[in-house]
Amino acid sequence: MTDHAEQDAMRRALVLAATSGVPVWPNPRVGCVLLAADGSTVAEGWHRGAGTPHAEADALAKAGDRARGATAVVTLEPCNHTGRTGPCAEALVAAGVRRVVFAQPDPNPLAAGGAETLRAAGIEVEQGLLADEARALNRVWTIATERQRPFVTWKLATTLDGRSAAADGTSRWVSSRAARRDTHRLRALCDVIMVGTNTVTVDDPELTVRDEADRPAGVQPLRVVVGERDLPADRRVFNDRAQSLHLRTRDPRAVLAELWRREKRHVFLEGGPTLAAAFVRAGLVDEVVCYVAPFLLGAGRAAVADLGITTISDAFRPRVTDVTVLPGADGEEPNVRFTLEPSCEQSRKES
Amino acid sequence: MTDHAEQDAMRRALVLAATSGVPVWPNPRVGCVLLAADGSTVAEGWHRGAGTPHAEADALAKAGDRARGATAVVTLEPCNHTGRTGPCAEALVAAGVRRVVFAQPDPNPLAAGGAETLRAAGIEVEQGLLADEARALNRVWTIATERQRPFVTWKLATTLDGRSAAADGTSRWVSSRAARRDTHRLRALCDVIMVGTNTVTVDDPELTVRDEADRPAGVQPLRVVVGERDLPADRRVFNDRAQSLHLRTRDPRAVLAELWRREKRHVFLEGGPTLAAAFVRAGLVDEVVCYVAPFLLGAGRAAVADLGITTISDAFRPRVTDVTVLPGADGEEPNVRFTLEPSCEQSRKES
Repeated sequence: MTDHAEQDAMRRALVLAATSGVPVWPNPRVGCVLLAADGSTVAEGWHRGAGTPHAEADALAKAGDRARGATAVVTLEPCNHTGRTGPCAEALVAAGVRRVVFAQPDPNPLAAGGAETLRAAGIEVEQGLLADEARALNRVWTIATERQRPFVTWKLATTLDGRSAAADGTSRWVSSRAARRDTHRLRALCDVIMVGTNTVTVDDPELTVRDEADRPAGVQPLRVVVGERDLPADRRVFNDRAQSLHLRTRDPRAVLAELWRREKRHVFLEGGPTLAAAFVRAGLVDEVVCYVAPFLLGAGRAAVADLGITTISDAFRPRVTDVTVLPGADGEEPNVRFTLEPSCEQSRKES
Repeated sequence: MTDHAEQDAMRRALVLAATSGVPVWPNPRVGCVLLAADGSTVAEGWHRGAGTPHAEADALAKAGDRARGATAVVTLEPCNHTGRTGPCAEALVAAGVRRVVFAQPDPNPLAAGGAETLRAAGIEVEQGLLADEARALNRVWTIATERQRPFVTWKLATTLDGRSAAADGTSRWVSSRAARRDTHRLRALCDVIMVGTNTVTVDDPELTVRDEADRPAGVQPLRVVVGERDLPADRRVFNDRAQSLHLRTRDPRAVLAELWRREKRHVFLEGGPTLAAAFVRAGLVDEVVCYVAPFLLGAGRAAVADLGITTISDAFRPRVTDVTVLPGADGEEPNVRFTLEPSCEQSRKES
């Protein structure tokens, strides 16, 4: 049974994990608090990103000898594998920790859990304390790890009548400035921004994360172009503001497998419609973010391509997790952002 | 100059007008308060619908001789014409009223105002007190009267990708129950529900106002079917639950002229897309109410037909006056209602 000190320590560990800010791709955000037998805090640790110590190692290093006999309270099951750093389970054993309380079990279906290793070494292990909060902290990373492929957020922008461009191809701008700003905010949370070759040919987007003054952010997601067509090297997606990758395939599974191999965890799929439809049809969209601009075109490019749906009962009906009105500014009308989450049946594990 | 008693009386008159409830088509809602010289209330009146006394007549009848020397505070300029009842301006003169304060000037561009008649009879007249509030009370009636044609609310329902039916034509249900409920509420505010012949052929809607238990309301708008095609008499729109009219034309101007002649003031245009597009192209849509159901079809019937727009800068961009999330119930997802108001340029006066 956990006591109040351990509960408080777990809340503190969650805060420590969250202080690392944006996702620390390809890793999860993790926090750790070492408690003495009297419930006082011995040391705190958190993970700062790939190549840096895990949260447990960070806390153990700060604690030194004082870790002996302590209770380690950690937001994620201690790892059992040797990656860029050594396995945390062994480090906890070596440091003489008496008890380990963790929140979220390791979601990796392939990895043997660290809990086993700890128990085998005679350490008292308790799991599940504030597990929902811990999972929410790394929602995308958790789902990606469970599915063993990057999490895919499909972003689209449409008029009220489902168009993404007018009949002559003009599309600047469908979304309001506030919606485009919001898109940059969401791009910054991902480690891949993806489009199809046709979008590069037609719209020539740069696909970088930029601030309100149009200055690029310091860290940029990988820009991935998918499709078999050759592309001219002078397209903006290939400029030096971020890394780029052209994947010459049309198979969504192959795309995600390659990106997973490159340790990518969160794809921001920005179109075009044909590429997005291929992902939906393959059951590989985990989240839909749709900006609706409240005007009508009556004709033009459809924002969504054929999804293979022929009758209303087969419609692609993800659960709505959020509807937000983005107020217009400078004479622009409000846009509305819908966030949808397909069920497990609609978004399947890579197989 | 109006004094406090007159201000208070005008607010009271607005409340009296609003108590008549739903619109009293084809008339506006009007309230009237008669004040004695000391500011005390002599009588109150309000209009209850076509064929019943106007608000001024109602108040004068209640006041009897006490109207002599009183101030009449009324929400709309007293009428100057003889309709089903006599002109109010003359009735006020005959009753010996000393002063008239009204809020909204008569919006009818063809009618000579009652103010002139009153002034010519030596009555003190003041106008404009709480005029905005009075106009808002009869927003639709005011615009219809100004434009000398019925006000047109175009209602559409669409998926997030602009579809109103799946590829096989199935469309039950695109909107949630909450959205369909909301539609019945809006239908009840109109005096005409309109569709094209194709909608009757394909969807066979009843087009009545019904409550949550699907019981028809006591007062029903006129059901109008527009188009040259013959229709079988067994279509539900021709049942005995409400009156019906088949207008064998495709010309929106001709449709509105005929409905105006029949004293109709507020058309609820429910489609189909071709008929609605004809109204938009003619500049005869005064309000757009669009329900968005947050799911995708990827193919199927477009909710909006060709509007003659070819480039993005020519998009039909009405002002957004409201965005409301209609929460889902019983496992349904929320729908979002957008209300848009075309500018005067986009929605022109009948000419």
